Amino acid sequence: MTSELDADTAVEEVAPGRFRAWITDRWNLGAAPNGGYLSMIATRAITASLSHPDPFSVTTHFLRMAKPGEAFVEVERVRDGKHHATVEARLIQDGAEILRTIAVLGDLTKIEGPTHVTLPAPALSWDECTAGWPAPHLAAISGRLEVRLAPGTTSWLDQTHSERAELGGWIRLQDGRAPDALSLVFFADVLPPPVLNLSIVQTRWVPTLELTVHVRARPSPGWLYAWFRTRALSRGYLESDGELWDSTGSLVAMSRQLARLNR
Amino acid sequence: MTSELDADTAVEEVAPGRFRAWITDRWNLGAAPNGGYLSMIATRAITASLSHPDPFSVTTHFLRMAKPGEAFVEVERVRDGKHHATVEARLIQDGAEILRTIAVLGDLTKIEGPTHVTLPAPALSWDECTAGWPAPHLAAISGRLEVRLAPGTTSWLDQTHSERAELGGWIRLQDGRAPDALSLVFFADVLPPPVLNLSIVQTRWVPTLELTVHVRARPSPGWLYAWFRTRALSRGYLESDGELWDSTGSLVAMSRQLARLNR
Repeated sequence: MTSELDADTAVEEVAPGRFRAWITDRWNLGAAPNGGYLSMIATRAITASLSHPDPFSVTTHFLRMAKPGEAFVEVERVRDGKHHATVEARLIQDGAEILRTIAVLGDLTKIEGPTHVTLPAPALSWDECTAGWPAPHLAAISGRLEVRLAPGTTSWLDQTHSERAELGGWIRLQDGRAPDALSLVFFADVLPPPVLNLSIVQTRWVPTLELTVHVRARPSPGWLYAWFRTRALSRGYLESDGELWDSTGSLVAMSRQLARLNR
Repeated sequence: MTSELDADTAVEEVAPGRFRAWITDRWNLGAAPNGGYLSMIATRAITASLSHPDPFSVTTHFLRMAKPGEAFVEVERVRDGKHHATVEARLIQDGAEILRTIAVLGDLTKIEGPTHVTLPAPALSWDECTAGWPAPHLAAISGRLEVRLAPGTTSWLDQTHSERAELGGWIRLQDGRAPDALSLVFFADVLPPPVLNLSIVQTRWVPTLELTVHVRARPSPGWLYAWFRTRALSRGYLESDGELWDSTGSLVAMSRQLARLNR
């Protein structure tokens, strides 16, 4: 049986380099489809036609609000090399460009070289985190994901405001679909912004301008551990840095986005 | 008098959206023009034709080696909004695409909103750092920059290997040209990779696949403080995260690149 995420990010090549997609409302946050979901649709079209199977770096610029319904992805091969390919995609809806994605791809099973990781591995066990999507009434996506977040990292929900712009915990798809390299593009933009833990942040809407995800390894099956933090909210603009580990404790992705508090 | 950096990144619009540039060898690292220098040329063409003066986020994919000489930048306006514009540029040399840059622009003097920065400010004073470019014989660029690096952060030069993948210190242009928002794209990719401090790294050549720079404020005149670190070298691939502060201690840019150790 096809998983919900695979069904809802499926693309069909209808002409050379042109893919048809169908954006569903099942991954909405409020009225808008989640940005990671949209970026995964574009990245799926990018990987569909190449011998390089894995996204290594995926940058998406969010241009306009998408809405559920038909969309097209136009894919341009920028460079096709031995180890890497660079590809660009535009997600088009009703003739308007919704987002633009540029990615470099390769094969994560074939890379080799020295390893030296000083990033701390997951700090909290599965048991130490708390089940439940923050504010499930706001998000269709809450029915698609199982989430266990670290205590105190959704402090805005009960107005306590930890004043620490961090948020994270364990996450997986509700229907049991295992994470893969492609889905990390989705997981890197699916949790609420950690900056909501600051009391000076009045809005709940923090639109992303640009999101870059570095996929570093294919994840093992099971839960992912995700941690996001903002270290510089500056005049309404902020980065959100994310790290994703798989169930074996391997770092599988790093992400950074530039976002702004809604005016 | 035009500064060296401005003279060497100048672009001239020769047709709508098409700019002529001249890549000099004055910013070479070894035989190759520095990536930040090339990215600045593309970003200058991007900002040349817009009412939004400042780059907010600049992502560059490095596709092929550039060489000194004539080049062209082809600029496409992707979206032109009230607060932001998104623009793409391709640097072309001898008919081949050298790099592709996508940027979102705005006006850094007009943004407003809450500020909350927990990133630690510069750790070392100017006096605590040591003058001199690492390995000046390798780099034409060493004549263009004044650098004072933190003790122990270029440990590969005397084979001691600190095993800490960090590098940073104070930096400015030799001819006194003050930093501006545009030049931060250059400064974010101008120092050697911090991963050279690890003894398992045998190569000195660490080519960048993708570089993203978030410009957060226009810098004040004077020295910049720059700090770069790699926390995950994984099977030869690595991120390098950078932070740039201006002479008043304000965070002015954050950068991240995906690179790989040369095979």
